[in-house]
Amino acid sequence: MTGPVVAALGGGHGLAATLTALRYVTDEITAIVTVADDGGSSGRLRDEFGVLPPGDLRMALAALCAESEWGHTWRDVLQHRFAGDGPLGGHALGNLLIVALWELHDDPVAGLDLVGRLLQAQGRVLPMAAVPLAIEADVSGLDPADPTAVQVVLGQAQVAVTPGTVERVRLVPAAPPACPESVAAIRSADWVVLGPGSWFTSVMTHLLVPEVREALEVTRARRLLILNLDPGSGETAGFSAERHLETFAELAPNLHLDVVLADPAVVDDPALLEAACARLGATLFVAPVGRRDRAGEHDPLRFAAAVRDIVTTPRPSR
Amino acid sequence: MTGPVVAALGGGHGLAATLTALRYVTDEITAIVTVADDGGSSGRLRDEFGVLPPGDLRMALAALCAESEWGHTWRDVLQHRFAGDGPLGGHALGNLLIVALWELHDDPVAGLDLVGRLLQAQGRVLPMAAVPLAIEADVSGLDPADPTAVQVVLGQAQVAVTPGTVERVRLVPAAPPACPESVAAIRSADWVVLGPGSWFTSVMTHLLVPEVREALEVTRARRLLILNLDPGSGETAGFSAERHLETFAELAPNLHLDVVLADPAVVDDPALLEAACARLGATLFVAPVGRRDRAGEHDPLRFAAAVRDIVTTPRPSR
Repeated sequence: MTGPVVAALGGGHGLAATLTALRYVTDEITAIVTVADDGGSSGRLRDEFGVLPPGDLRMALAALCAESEWGHTWRDVLQHRFAGDGPLGGHALGNLLIVALWELHDDPVAGLDLVGRLLQAQGRVLPMAAVPLAIEADVSGLDPADPTAVQVVLGQAQVAVTPGTVERVRLVPAAPPACPESVAAIRSADWVVLGPGSWFTSVMTHLLVPEVREALEVTRARRLLILNLDPGSGETAGFSAERHLETFAELAPNLHLDVVLADPAVVDDPALLEAACARLGATLFVAPVGRRDRAGEHDPLRFAAAVRDIVTTPRPSR
Repeated sequence: MTGPVVAALGGGHGLAATLTALRYVTDEITAIVTVADDGGSSGRLRDEFGVLPPGDLRMALAALCAESEWGHTWRDVLQHRFAGDGPLGGHALGNLLIVALWELHDDPVAGLDLVGRLLQAQGRVLPMAAVPLAIEADVSGLDPADPTAVQVVLGQAQVAVTPGTVERVRLVPAAPPACPESVAAIRSADWVVLGPGSWFTSVMTHLLVPEVREALEVTRARRLLILNLDPGSGETAGFSAERHLETFAELAPNLHLDVVLADPAVVDDPALLEAACARLGATLFVAPVGRRDRAGEHDPLRFAAAVRDIVTTPRPSR
């Protein structure tokens, strides 16, 4: 297998699902991972060492590990979390390994490449930005007495679980420097894949890094946006598929998409969604990609089949 | 290279020096490591997880890592200590990796073997006992008013730096179960090497594990005891080379040695030391094994040459 050169942007479980699917399709994968997480093990490591949050990077590496005894063994080790609630309790070993490599090398990319070699990873994992980021959101609906009042919620962990409606997200610092290798990967890809994942805190964050957004705008790659299996949960509770696309257009009005992939479960009105896609320059591709036995999770093979059908379509002549 | 089958018993920097020398002599090395450390990173991990102290095991693995870019890279990673004084500060990454493997596998030997594979280690590293141990010592000379008074000092970290004279050491629990693989390695070796190292807390501890002492007594292997470069420091301050051998005989009266290796710096009276060796059944082998430019450290090549000369000597006919 060789396959198209793909850059996949996202974070957390959504990006891991995309990477797992992409592995059936191509060997040429670069994952570009959000670095705004401030919760759990990653948050504690940011507090202690001021480093990029390693958790989403580790999860992406695990998703790309070799399908061998060696790869699986080290994947399990890196994903292992220490038991208990002591100083180490809850830390994923892979997070600690990545931070140790960063202390040794002082180069985030070199450290991640070394973990990739350990896992014999099928692809590369890069941070979207060169500095740790925070997320700040304007959220409405938090005050029952005044549903239109907007409050600022700080931190990815808080935004991801807010019961209110996210109106807008910002990065702190604003306009952070991108990771140069990530920009290069976007520019030289055949396909760029965005999503699925926590919409504001894992997917849209990439559009807030100016060099990343600009690379997405000018790349010769085709652009695939993957909608969530269940749009109506968490920070986008109550959002329709069309609303998801609108938030995207608001943040990156000059970014045109080629294809939007949606599971039938989130398509309420096909004509409406097609129109929303068309406003972004994209065609709609509807395919069942969820597991039959577990709601909210991607079926790796169905998801892979849909992604393959999309990325192996010849570029339309203009 | 194949070379004789060697089991090397000890702990800390002393064992690491022996292993570094042995690597020039043979590929067939098993390190059998004390597990009574209660200080530093190992002590904190014992407190948090109740595991064997991983520090001396990690150091032995590092000494056996492959002489390749891969081996050196992972050695440096495993030896890396986190900066600062936060929850992770001072922990060696390799210690955390070993503990994670123990949580995953629930088998100390399997975890160590996996780290050995990561380092492409030239040899195997095993714990001497199957349970974490504490060291307790009777120490005299701590009370200026009564220099003969004996006090109990608890913990390897405390015993190793006591300003008094160590009269006797015990393990807590007494008579702990050995690691079966360690017993088997001693029984099937061509040579067993003891020391150098902190005399009471790294070298003699092995004699306090009944199955280890018994294996040392009955093995068909020849037995080499390596005296320290500087006998008069730390827990054996003021001890002559002969006194070191007497403490050995007190703990294991039925254990006969074949060779005692001593640096000229610790040989005050050759006839006296030869006689002390003879009481243990051993011949004395004197060779300079220290670094010329740094006192108290072994010169890897001189140390290797002396060990090679000893272990390649044909077994004397009786």
